Amino acid sequence: MIELTKADLELLTGTHYAHFVTLHRDGSPHVSPTWVDAAEGHVLINTAQGRVKDRNVRNDPRVAVSIMKWDDAYTWLSITGTVVDIQTGERAERHIDELAHRYDGEGFTYKPGQVREIVKIRPDRIIRSD
Amino acid sequence: MIELTKADLELLTGTHYAHFVTLHRDGSPHVSPTWVDAAEGHVLINTAQGRVKDRNVRNDPRVAVSIMKWDDAYTWLSITGTVVDIQTGERAERHIDELAHRYDGEGFTYKPGQVREIVKIRPDRIIRSD
Repeated sequence: MIELTKADLELLTGTHYAHFVTLHRDGSPHVSPTWVDAAEGHVLINTAQGRVKDRNVRNDPRVAVSIMKWDDAYTWLSITGTVVDIQTGERAERHIDELAHRYDGEGFTYKPGQVREIVKIRPDRIIRSD
Repeated sequence: MIELTKADLELLTGTHYAHFVTLHRDGSPHVSPTWVDAAEGHVLINTAQGRVKDRNVRNDPRVAVSIMKWDDAYTWLSITGTVVDIQTGERAERHIDELAHRYDGEGFTYKPGQVREIVKIRPDRIIRSD
């Protein structure tokens, strides 16, 4: 496990978007933009059960996250990591609401039947902009 | 091969940054932000020989590209594709210079000994924002 620096945490807990990479069952990569967060040295992605990324990480925990400062393309972070936990329930619902407030300035619009989950990623390798 | 729409091309040939995913030899994903371009129905990434992404695509041609409009997070594109060609030489040098002008408004600063290359990606699957 690699330690996240103060600068890493600023990028991961601001309003910058992450691009989250997971692996399909055949090993090919999938990537999509998403909100991101960090806590206790881990990167957190909040997704919904049944989505491609959810199915992928349950099959193969190897993931990557790329994040770039939205107002400065020369400040970015690339993390290769491992999913070590997936948490559903009240905490995941509260977390997506916090992210919605942070990124959009308003509460999360729940979709009926959607089960939110926090994907907890252990950083194994980090590449930072110079 | 999936056809790129006019809206896709606008995203791929503007000044929006892409996040380019390649696979390490052990199958784990690598992702980093990069300039991007498109031509003749393919996505083009300009990189340098010897870099992680260069070594990765030469080993496994399966890649992915995520791109988000820098001024509108709700317009994005996620492409899973295959590297079908890698081109070096004068055309690759000219291409990185064009990209530098487009993104930074000035010519590319060449690094001594660096060999540029155009990685040509065939889109196999595209997911678009709603």
